[in-house]
Amino acid sequence: MRPSKRQPDELRRVSIERAVSLHAEGSCLIKFGNTHVLCTASLEERVPPWLKGQQRGWITAEYSMLPRATHERTRREVTKGYPSGRTQEIQRLIGRALRAVVDLPRLGERQITVDCDVIQADGGTRTAAITGAWVALYECIQWMKLRDMVKDDVLRDQVAAVSCGIYGTTPVLDLDYAEDSNAEADANFVMTGAGGIVEVQGTAETVPFSQESFDELMALARKGIGELLQLQKLTVS
Amino acid sequence: MRPSKRQPDELRRVSIERAVSLHAEGSCLIKFGNTHVLCTASLEERVPPWLKGQQRGWITAEYSMLPRATHERTRREVTKGYPSGRTQEIQRLIGRALRAVVDLPRLGERQITVDCDVIQADGGTRTAAITGAWVALYECIQWMKLRDMVKDDVLRDQVAAVSCGIYGTTPVLDLDYAEDSNAEADANFVMTGAGGIVEVQGTAETVPFSQESFDELMALARKGIGELLQLQKLTVS
Amino acid sequence: MRPSKRQPDELRRVSIERAVSLHAEGSCLIKFGNTHVLCTASLEERVPPWLKGQQRGWITAEYSMLPRATHERTRREVTKGYPSGRTQEIQRLIGRALRAVVDLPRLGERQITVDCDVIQADGGTRTAAITGAWVALYECIQWMKLRDMVKDDVLRDQVAAVSCGIYGTTPVLDLDYAEDSNAEADANFVMTGAGGIVEVQGTAETVPFSQESFDELMALARKGIGELLQLQKLTVS
Amino acid sequence: MRPSKRQPDELRRVSIERAVSLHAEGSCLIKFGNTHVLCTASLEERVPPWLKGQQRGWITAEYSMLPRATHERTRREVTKGYPSGRTQEIQRLIGRALRAVVDLPRLGERQITVDCDVIQADGGTRTAAITGAWVALYECIQWMKLRDMVKDDVLRDQVAAVSCGIYGTTPVLDLDYAEDSNAEADANFVMTGAGGIVEVQGTAETVPFSQESFDELMALARKGIGELLQLQKLTVS
Amino acid sequence: MRPSKRQPDELRRVSIERAVSLHAEGSCLIKFGNTHVLCTASLEERVPPWLKGQQRGWITAEYSMLPRATHERTRREVTKGYPSGRTQEIQRLIGRALRAVVDLPRLGERQITVDCDVIQADGGTRTAAITGAWVALYECIQWMKLRDMVKDDVLRDQVAAVSCGIYGTTPVLDLDYAEDSNAEADANFVMTGAGGIVEVQGTAETVPFSQESFDELMALARKGIGELLQLQKLTVS
Amino acid sequence: MRPSKRQPDELRRVSIERAVSLHAEGSCLIKFGNTHVLCTASLEERVPPWLKGQQRGWITAEYSMLPRATHERTRREVTKGYPSGRTQEIQRLIGRALRAVVDLPRLGERQITVDCDVIQADGGTRTAAITGAWVALYECIQWMKLRDMVKDDVLRDQVAAVSCGIYGTTPVLDLDYAEDSNAEADANFVMTGAGGIVEVQGTAETVPFSQESFDELMALARKGIGELLQLQKLTVS
Repeated sequence: MRPSKRQPDELRRVSIERAVSLHAEGSCLIKFGNTHVLCTASLEERVPPWLKGQQRGWITAEYSMLPRATHERTRREVTKGYPSGRTQEIQRLIGRALRAVVDLPRLGERQITVDCDVIQADGGTRTAAITGAWVALYECIQWMKLRDMVKDDVLRDQVAAVSCGIYGTTPVLDLDYAEDSNAEADANFVMTGAGGIVEVQGTAETVPFSQESFDELMALARKGIGELLQLQKLTVS
Repeated sequence: MRPSKRQPDELRRVSIERAVSLHAEGSCLIKFGNTHVLCTASLEERVPPWLKGQQRGWITAEYSMLPRATHERTRREVTKGYPSGRTQEIQRLIGRALRAVVDLPRLGERQITVDCDVIQADGGTRTAAITGAWVALYECIQWMKLRDMVKDDVLRDQVAAVSCGIYGTTPVLDLDYAEDSNAEADANFVMTGAGGIVEVQGTAETVPFSQESFDELMALARKGIGELLQLQKLTVS
Repeated sequence: MRPSKRQPDELRRVSIERAVSLHAEGSCLIKFGNTHVLCTASLEERVPPWLKGQQRGWITAEYSMLPRATHERTRREVTKGYPSGRTQEIQRLIGRALRAVVDLPRLGERQITVDCDVIQADGGTRTAAITGAWVALYECIQWMKLRDMVKDDVLRDQVAAVSCGIYGTTPVLDLDYAEDSNAEADANFVMTGAGGIVEVQGTAETVPFSQESFDELMALARKGIGELLQLQKLTVS
Repeated sequence: MRPSKRQPDELRRVSIERAVSLHAEGSCLIKFGNTHVLCTASLEERVPPWLKGQQRGWITAEYSMLPRATHERTRREVTKGYPSGRTQEIQRLIGRALRAVVDLPRLGERQITVDCDVIQADGGTRTAAITGAWVALYECIQWMKLRDMVKDDVLRDQVAAVSCGIYGTTPVLDLDYAEDSNAEADANFVMTGAGGIVEVQGTAETVPFSQESFDELMALARKGIGELLQLQKLTVS
Repeated sequence: MRPSKRQPDELRRVSIERAVSLHAEGSCLIKFGNTHVLCTASLEERVPPWLKGQQRGWITAEYSMLPRATHERTRREVTKGYPSGRTQEIQRLIGRALRAVVDLPRLGERQITVDCDVIQADGGTRTAAITGAWVALYECIQWMKLRDMVKDDVLRDQVAAVSCGIYGTTPVLDLDYAEDSNAEADANFVMTGAGGIVEVQGTAETVPFSQESFDELMALARKGIGELLQLQKLTVS
Repeated sequence: MRPSKRQPDELRRVSIERAVSLHAEGSCLIKFGNTHVLCTASLEERVPPWLKGQQRGWITAEYSMLPRATHERTRREVTKGYPSGRTQEIQRLIGRALRAVVDLPRLGERQITVDCDVIQADGGTRTAAITGAWVALYECIQWMKLRDMVKDDVLRDQVAAVSCGIYGTTPVLDLDYAEDSNAEADANFVMTGAGGIVEVQGTAETVPFSQESFDELMALARKGIGELLQLQKLTVS
C-alpha cells in the first residue's frame, strides 16, 4: 500500500491554471497534488551569443525553489553564489524537453525563457515543471501568432513528464515526497504527444534494478503521461 | 489625476490570505493591487554565530523577485553570484521593521526567517512585503505559543508600511509602478500599531523636496498605514 | 551630557583639505572629528552601457573602509567576494545625493566616479563622505571647465549631509561612534544649498520615535548642514 | 557505415593501466580509443559533515577535463568560478554509480574521493570515467584490506558504463566524438557485474526515439558492458 | 639621465611618520617620493586554523591600492570578486619578509596582520610597503611589551626593501613609475639589518640581463637598503 | 648527504616526450624525476582585448595540479572559486619566461596559451613546467611555420628553469619535495640559451642567506640549466 493510498498506476490530482501572470507572454500554475510550480514563458528578441546569425531561435529554462517550498527551509542558492548541481541538471532537462517539440528555425532569431519556480514541493517537481512549462510555452507561441510573428507549425507536438519508482517491490506511478524518500529506484520519463521518448533517467537508489522492472516503469509512465497530455490539451483548448 | 484613477489618499485594493503554505510555521499571500508577495516565516532552533550564548533570539528577512514578476524578465541574482544592492537594502529594511516589534530576549535562542518572494510586481513591493511579513510572523509566534515555546508578550505590537510620493505636484498614497516611475520624489514609511515611526526613507528623484511636502507625505502615510493595521488585525483575528 | 561633551546642536570639528591627490581630477580629505574620509573624483570619457547614446552623463560613487579604520580590524570585502549590503547601501546613497545637484545632460557622455575611502572611522562616515564628495566633484568640474569641456551651469547647487539621533532622551547633532552605539534612534539627512531635502533616512534602533522627535532631528540637521555648506563654500572659493 | 569503421556493436580499443600514481591509494589510466581518463582514488579518515556519527562511509567523485583535452581549447572552470552544470551532472553520476556497489556501513567513517581527469577527449568521457573509477576504487580498497581497515565484502560488485546512440538509423555502441556529434539520440548505461541496471540516461537530440530503438540501445549496452567488466576483472586480477 | 634627475644610486626623498592611526596597535605613513603607503599592524588573540595548538604565532600581510592611487582609476578588486594575482603575490612577499625577522614561537598564539594600503602610487609600492610594515610591526610589538605580552627578543632584526633596474644601460636605484615603465629589467631586494638576503626577485622585461648587471643591481640595493634601515632606526628611536 | 642521494650539482633524471596530445598544436610530457608535467600549446587567432590592433601577439600560461598529484589530496581550486595566489604567481612566471624569448610583433595578432598541468608532483613543478612549456611552444611555432603563418625568427632563443637551495649548509641543485621541505633557502632561476638571466626568485625560508650563498646557488643553476637546454635541443631536433 502506498503512503498516499493511491493505486500503483494512479496519478495525484493534477490541475493546470492558465494565464496566471500579468506580465509574461505565457504562464500557468501547475499542481501535482501538493507540488505547485509556477511556469512563465518570456519572449526576448535576441538569441544567446553562440547562436547569433544562424537564423534560428532558442528555448531555455530556469528552475528554482522558494526557500520554504520544502519541509525544512532551504538556503537560497544566491547566498551560495551559483546554482547547485541539482538545479542545473533540472533546468538543462526542462530546456531539452521543450526544444524537442519546437521547430527552432521557424521561431526566428528569438529566445523564449521558461521559468519554473516551485512554490511548494512534495516530490516530482521536475516532472510537474516540464508538464507546466509546455503550457506556458504554448501560450507564448499563441501570443506570437496573434502578432504574426510565427506560424502554427513552430510547436510540433506536446511534451509531458512523470516519475515512476519501485516502492517496496511494486512499481508505482508519480511518486510524492514520502514515497520517493523510500523508493528502491526511481526514474523520470519525458514523452511527446506522438508517444516518442524524449528523455529517460533511471537511477537505482540502493539496489540495481532489473530489465523487467525498468520495462514496467516505462509502461506506467506511458499511461500517466497519456493522462497529462489529455489535461494539457483541455487546458489550452 | 493619478494613472490609477485613485484619490490622492486612497490605497490600492489590499488583501491578505493567511496560511497559504503547507510547510511554513507562518505564511500569507499579500496583494497591494497587482503587487503580490508570498511571505513565509520559518522557525529554526539556532541563532546566528555572533549571537550565540546571549539568551536572545533573532528575526531576519530575505527578499527576492521571481524573474518574470516584472514587466520585462529580470535575470536571476544567482546567475550574478550575489544579491544586488537593492535586494540587500530591502531585506535589511524588512528585518529591522520586524525586530522593532519583537521582544528578542523573550523569543529564546531561536531564529525566525521571514522570506518575502514577489510573485508579481507593480510598485510598492517592499511595503507590501513588510505588511505581509508581520502576518507571517504573527502566525509563526502563534504556532510557538500553541507548543508553549513562548508567551504572549513576545510580539509587542503590529508593524506595517506604505509608500507615498509626489506625482506631478500632488502628494499621493501607495504608488503603483506607473506612478512611481513618474514621481518627483518618493518615500517609504514604516510605523507601529501605537503610531511610532520605525523607519522613514525619503528620496528626491529629480527635484529636492521641501519640508512642507515631506510633512504631507508623512500625514498620508499615517492614514494609509492605519488602514493596513486594521486589515492585519482582521486577518489574524 | 554627550560623551563628546558637545552641546546637543554642536558639530564635531570639521575640516576639509582640497587637492590632496596627485592623480585625481578632484579630491579632498574631509575630517568630521576622528572620522577621516579621502574623496577623489575620477573623470572617464564613457558612460555605463545602459546610458549609451542618450547624450547625458553619469555620476557614481564607491565607498570603502580601510581594514583598520575601525576599532577592531574589519575583514576586507574582497576576501568575501562582493561588497556588503551596508557598503552598497552607502555608495548608492552618495551617488543619488551627488546626482541631485548635477545637470546630467550638460555633463555630456561622461562619467565621474567619486571614491570615498574611509581612512579612519569614528561614526558618521557616510555623511562625511557625501559632504567631502561634493568638494571633490566641484574640483573635477572646475578641471573640466578649464579645458572647456563643460560650462558653469553643470553643477546646480551644493549638497551636504549630517546625522542626528536621540541620545538618552535628547536629540543631538552629528553622532560620533560612542554616541551612535547608544542612541535610541538615528537619522541621516542630505540637503542642498537651497534648503531642499534630497534624502532622509531615519531608523529606530530600539524604540520607535514620535513625530515630534523626528521633527526636532530634522531641525538640528538643517542647522548642521547649514554650517557644512558654509565650510564647503570657503573651501572651494 | 560508422565514421570509425567499427561494426555497430563494436567497442573502441579499450585498455586499463593500473597503479599509475605515486601518491594515490588507487589509480588507473583508462583509454576508450582516443579518450584517456586518469582515475585516482583518495582515502580520507573523515566523512562529509552531514554524515558524521552515522557509522557509514561515503564515496564521492570529481570530474574535470584538461583545457586542451578537447579539439578547441576549453576555458578552465576555475576562471569562471564554479563547476559547470555538465561537470556537476557527470560527477554526481560517477559518484552514484560507485556507491551502488559499495557497502557504505562496512567502509567505516571514511570517505573515498575518486578523481576522474580527462587527459584527452574523443567522446564517451563519462562512461570511460565510471569504468576506470571502479578500478581505482578496487585498488584503494585492496590497499585498505592490506592494512586491515576493511574486509572483502565492502565492494559488492563491479560497475561499468558505456554509451550507445542512433547513428543515421542504426543503433551503435560506444560513440566517439565524430559519431556523437551527428547522432539522432544517445544514451548512457551503467550496469553491475550481476547485470543490474544502476543508471540509464537517454536523450533524444533531434527526433524523439521509439520504444523499440530504446530497447535495441539497451541490448547493445549490455553486450558492451559485458566486455568492459571482463577487462576490469583481468586488470585487477 | 634619469627622468627624476636623481643620481643612479640616489633614493627618492623618503619619510616615515609614526603612530598615524587612532585604532591600530602599530602604524606609519611611509613616503618614497610620491608613493605613499599607510601601514597598520593589528593584533589578534588567535592564529589561523592550520596553526592552532602549535604554540607559535603568525604574521601576515594584506596589500591594496585605493582606486585613484594610480594615474588612471583602477577598478576595485572587490567588484571582480577576488584579489588579483599581482595583489596576492605582493601580500605574500610582505608577509614572508616580516616573518623572516620575527621569532614566531616567542610571539605566542597570536596573529599580527599588517595592512599596507597604497594611498598614492608612483612606482615601488611593494618595497615602500615592506619598509613601512616593519615600522608598524615594531610599534605593535612595543605595544605588546608595555603590556608584558612579549619580551624584547621577539623582533630579531630590521627588514627593508628597495627596487633597482636597468634604465637605458645604467643600473639605477629606487625606480619611480616613469623609470619603471621604461626599464629593461627590474629587481626587488629585501634585506635585514644584519645584511642577510631575505628575498630577491629579478625580472627581465625585454632583454635578459647578464650576471654582471645583476651583481650591480644587488650592490645598489645594498646601499639603498642601508639608508632605509637607518631611517627606520631613527623613526622608532 | 641529500635525501635523494644525488651529488649537490646533480639534476634528477629528466626526460621530455614530444607530441603527446592529439589536439594541441604543440605538447610534451616532461619529467623531473617523479615530477610529471603535461604541457600543451594552443593557438588562437585572437589577442586579449587590451592588445587589440597593436599588431603583436601574446603568449600566456596557465598552471594547475591534479588533485592527487600531491601526497595528500588537494582540493580543486574551482571549488574555492578562483585560482590561489600560488597558482597565479606560477602562471605569471611561466608566461613571462616564454615571452622573454618570443618576438611578439612577428607572431602576428595571435595568442598562444601554454597549459602546464601537473600530473604528479615531487618538488620543482614550476621549473619543470617552464622547461617543458618551451618545448610545447617550439612545436606550436613549427606547426605555424608549416602553414606559413610565421617565419623562423619568431622564437629567438630557448628558455629553461631550475631550482636550487641550501640543504643543511650545502647548496644543492634541483630540489625534490623531501629536500625542499627542509631547505634553509631556495631559489628559482630562469635562463636563456644565450646565458641571459630572465628571472631570479630567491627566498630565505628561515635564515636570511648571504651574498656568497646566493652566488653559489646561481652557479649551480647555470650548470643545471645548461643540461636542460641540451635536452630541449635534442628533443626538438
